[in-house]
Amino acid sequence: MAVITVLGAGMMGSAFCVPLVDRGHDVRLVGTHLDHAIIESLRSRGFHPTLKLDLPPSIQPFFVSELEEAARGADILAFGVSSAGIRWATETIAHHARPGVPLVMITKGLELDGEAGRLLVLPDVVRRGLPEEVRTNVSPAAVAGPCIAGELARRVPTSVVVTGRDGEALDKLAHALRGPYYHVFRCADVIGAEVCAALKNAYAMGVALGAGLHEKKGGAPGSVAMHNWESAVFAQAIREMMRVIGMLGGDPMTATGLPGVGDLDVTMNGGRTGRFGRLLGLGIGAREAVARMEGATLECLEILDVMRRALPAYEARGELGPGELPLLRTLITVALEDAPVEMPFDSFFGA
Amino acid sequence: MAVITVLGAGMMGSAFCVPLVDRGHDVRLVGTHLDHAIIESLRSRGFHPTLKLDLPPSIQPFFVSELEEAARGADILAFGVSSAGIRWATETIAHHARPGVPLVMITKGLELDGEAGRLLVLPDVVRRGLPEEVRTNVSPAAVAGPCIAGELARRVPTSVVVTGRDGEALDKLAHALRGPYYHVFRCADVIGAEVCAALKNAYAMGVALGAGLHEKKGGAPGSVAMHNWESAVFAQAIREMMRVIGMLGGDPMTATGLPGVGDLDVTMNGGRTGRFGRLLGLGIGAREAVARMEGATLECLEILDVMRRALPAYEARGELGPGELPLLRTLITVALEDAPVEMPFDSFFGA
Repeated sequence: MAVITVLGAGMMGSAFCVPLVDRGHDVRLVGTHLDHAIIESLRSRGFHPTLKLDLPPSIQPFFVSELEEAARGADILAFGVSSAGIRWATETIAHHARPGVPLVMITKGLELDGEAGRLLVLPDVVRRGLPEEVRTNVSPAAVAGPCIAGELARRVPTSVVVTGRDGEALDKLAHALRGPYYHVFRCADVIGAEVCAALKNAYAMGVALGAGLHEKKGGAPGSVAMHNWESAVFAQAIREMMRVIGMLGGDPMTATGLPGVGDLDVTMNGGRTGRFGRLLGLGIGAREAVARMEGATLECLEILDVMRRALPAYEARGELGPGELPLLRTLITVALEDAPVEMPFDSFFGA
Repeated sequence: MAVITVLGAGMMGSAFCVPLVDRGHDVRLVGTHLDHAIIESLRSRGFHPTLKLDLPPSIQPFFVSELEEAARGADILAFGVSSAGIRWATETIAHHARPGVPLVMITKGLELDGEAGRLLVLPDVVRRGLPEEVRTNVSPAAVAGPCIAGELARRVPTSVVVTGRDGEALDKLAHALRGPYYHVFRCADVIGAEVCAALKNAYAMGVALGAGLHEKKGGAPGSVAMHNWESAVFAQAIREMMRVIGMLGGDPMTATGLPGVGDLDVTMNGGRTGRFGRLLGLGIGAREAVARMEGATLECLEILDVMRRALPAYEARGELGPGELPLLRTLITVALEDAPVEMPFDSFFGA
């Protein structure tokens, strides 16, 4: 069994520890400076306040000041921070990264390299942040696929992929992570998996617009609502994910599996992204919708902003046509530019 | 504008008339012998009893005894009957089919040609049933994609494909059918579209098992339930649709669009298939689950039975491996052989 140190004790980082400790690993959960109350609660009464659940007592909670101790002898290092915390986490973990110790990220995202005008997947961003002597030997891996943290923490059967560029590390990781209710598949296409993981938030917001539109017209939830509308958006979302993956040099087929279809589906059921999309669909305007989310992290807005800045560069190089990604472009105008929701269905599906 | 005669006044056949009459077509809705009460209600008060809605008065309702009159001068003939009624409908419409008059089916399904041991898509089944002089000139087309009838009848924006082997007829149909809220895309892959249209019922039942499993354990519906389980099944369903399409000589990519991803998603929200899957997930047994559905048509059972009979022939010819389609095989045992729900996640995704 392995020593696994997880940095970030939010819902996802903490939930990730449950199947690992059930497998018999020595699991150390390190809170960031934002997770002080969580670690305190775990230490004093074993209760995770945002998961609203007692965690298995064998998960060892550490304050960030105790990272040195928690990372000592780690066989696997994991990032469970939010994408906003990724730079801090990289700097923090850099001292503990070393050849032969896989680095795996639960954190997801795409960043724009403004100078090159190219999108970078988070594992590559993290790799750039590692000291040179580590960088040549460690290629960060990532977990993607449909996983609501509260369900994994309650041992609901969950299927994910682990992806990365280092085949040997992937084997080691997949073997170490998988367990009876945590099904871990290898995925060689890190671009595809990460593009899906990032974009699914934007597209889930798009599907959820339908619920708001329906409510705005006085409709009640039920089996007759705006599901035809929503499912057409869902299907177009998968096609656009495939297109973006291809544009970035990944394998479009990745969007047809757990990271694309699966994760987009689960995100529709998972909470805040859906709630935010519904608010936008109600037509109250983006500013008011954000206000009503009371400070919840909205990954959909982050990725839409990244894509808004990235698309012109890809178009300028002729790698994307101006009529492509009509759904994504609509979501950008709705969420970032306060445009009314008018879905351009007739330009979908390569029409 | 065209004269369009629709045979079958159930929910889907009737809903299909709404965008057509809104486009200004001369639309004639012919009830089968099962639709007598519907046609009577439409004639006397314009109300459709199963759609629970007043239909536009310009839709002309006909009893089946008046088919001759309703089909006179038709530019397009449409089948809106259930798949069980397809042979009757073919014989009935055969007298009115003629070259240059597209035949379009809203009815969906796959049949097994027992002698050849091969699956046939419904448009090809219908074509076989047409008189020879018609058959050489008419290639039936079909509509597929995410469409809840009650929503289309209420003019909810809906996106579908029209598919068939006769490109010219497809052009004519797509042009005639599409309207401001009924977005109709051409799809050349009739195999792919029809495989998705048929299998989505089985797979939607599979996804819905999760709701029953959750409830059985005492869980309440909500954002923390068995969504991780369900979304992994959803993703595997798309992969298996792609495999079956390939096995039948169609284009697996069709499953990534409206007929696959879109229709599977909408079917999760559409009523009886989901309710039946939930009952099976509760573990009350297939017989009791069927009984509780009180005679509702369960397309999922029909297609699972077809696939159960078909798979051995494809395996015997080496066109399918014994380890392939693990989800479909599980659904067959659960729904037709009363096996407990044990999802073989570790054999998913080509593992």
